[in-house]
Amino acid sequence: MLTTAECDRLRVVLVETRNPLNIGAAARAMSNFGFRRLRVVKPYAPAFREARSAVGASSVLARAEKFDAVADALADCSLVVGTSAIRTRHLHHTVRRSEDATRLIRRRLRSGNVAILFGSEKRGLTNDDLSHCHWLLRIPTSDENISMNLGQAVAVCLYELIRGSKTPRQPEELPLASAAETERITAKLLDALHESGFLDLRRVADSEQRIRRLVRRLHLPARDAVIWLGMFRQIVWKLRSGRPSQD
Amino acid sequence: MLTTAECDRLRVVLVETRNPLNIGAAARAMSNFGFRRLRVVKPYAPAFREARSAVGASSVLARAEKFDAVADALADCSLVVGTSAIRTRHLHHTVRRSEDATRLIRRRLRSGNVAILFGSEKRGLTNDDLSHCHWLLRIPTSDENISMNLGQAVAVCLYELIRGSKTPRQPEELPLASAAETERITAKLLDALHESGFLDLRRVADSEQRIRRLVRRLHLPARDAVIWLGMFRQIVWKLRSGRPSQD
Repeated sequence: MLTTAECDRLRVVLVETRNPLNIGAAARAMSNFGFRRLRVVKPYAPAFREARSAVGASSVLARAEKFDAVADALADCSLVVGTSAIRTRHLHHTVRRSEDATRLIRRRLRSGNVAILFGSEKRGLTNDDLSHCHWLLRIPTSDENISMNLGQAVAVCLYELIRGSKTPRQPEELPLASAAETERITAKLLDALHESGFLDLRRVADSEQRIRRLVRRLHLPARDAVIWLGMFRQIVWKLRSGRPSQD
Repeated sequence: MLTTAECDRLRVVLVETRNPLNIGAAARAMSNFGFRRLRVVKPYAPAFREARSAVGASSVLARAEKFDAVADALADCSLVVGTSAIRTRHLHHTVRRSEDATRLIRRRLRSGNVAILFGSEKRGLTNDDLSHCHWLLRIPTSDENISMNLGQAVAVCLYELIRGSKTPRQPEELPLASAAETERITAKLLDALHESGFLDLRRVADSEQRIRRLVRRLHLPARDAVIWLGMFRQIVWKLRSGRPSQD
């Protein structure tokens, strides 16, 4: 059973949603299952306006936060989970069935914020959106029709989170770095890789996304974030100063 | 795991549904989870027409059967389950949480037909509808908002029915880098920290051990070990070459 505090650590993040009914449906499911923090990223503006002004729009919707970039909507989260209909292992991400996924999410909610990302109705999450995710959650749909309605997918995920939650408590894990900290470290590492010529040697279209995923795959503890950032900062400073080392 | 035959023994029965989008959403969720037998009882006629003629209306919807009386829609079922948001014991019915309810439904589907009834958006199932039910299924919603959207309620019930069917096991956790690989990466990082002056700035007796522990806490995946080593190697090379960067 999730506590109210734990429920409030979950952020439901809708990315580029176009249909106002879907935004409303997501908010309604949240309210049904006791979640309150809705975030929308680059929503189709009229849709967001319409959803908020709908008769009976919930308090969840009224308090929804709007962001212009995915990274900003995740900044305070230490676990970022993408949703995908894809059944097989993703090229770059572990895919977990909803039952297993929510067990991990519940555990993380004890000490940190978690974001679940839902992509647009048309094309789901983009590769860039996915590069912010630690892993993916998949609802076990039938092969014949894997594509769920957005509002229904949100309802099923949240239901699974609150469902039968009687699992025995486990000791707290090390709280992990927030998405904002992780992104700062990623940015500094990218600087170091540019300065050192590493990225020139391996020029590929999506090198930034690759590095972002690489860092996301680490279990960066929150307590270590400052020192990692400091290390990369110093390395970049030295690379830029361009002076020979004392050795 | 339900077999196709078992899935086909389930009838999703929508009673006096008014909103065509909800009929469409119920059909879509059925198709997502492998169920095919949709029955509608006294639907608001234009709604049913509109739902069936919608672009992309599913084959589930195309084959939906229409009835004028609840009794007729249930005639071939040996278990009839009503859905209700009511939390407490109904006057005349046992109320089962969705998790327990679906276990019983799955068992019955092995040999007989089962109907799950969903009432109208406005007032749910009437007492007359309920009198046809053996017992009631309740989705454990929050006290603050017990009333679910019809399409979402259907999705959650059907998800619960197919859930946990042991099919494809969750992918293994990512295999982690060996101690030898981790140590090579640590050594190269230490070189970079020496070259950049980072360790001179923070001279403490056990700085090497600290960095070693820091790297161990990352749980480095095996598949990423080579690239992390390559990145640090290139950074060290650049730091030692001491040439100004091109920027």
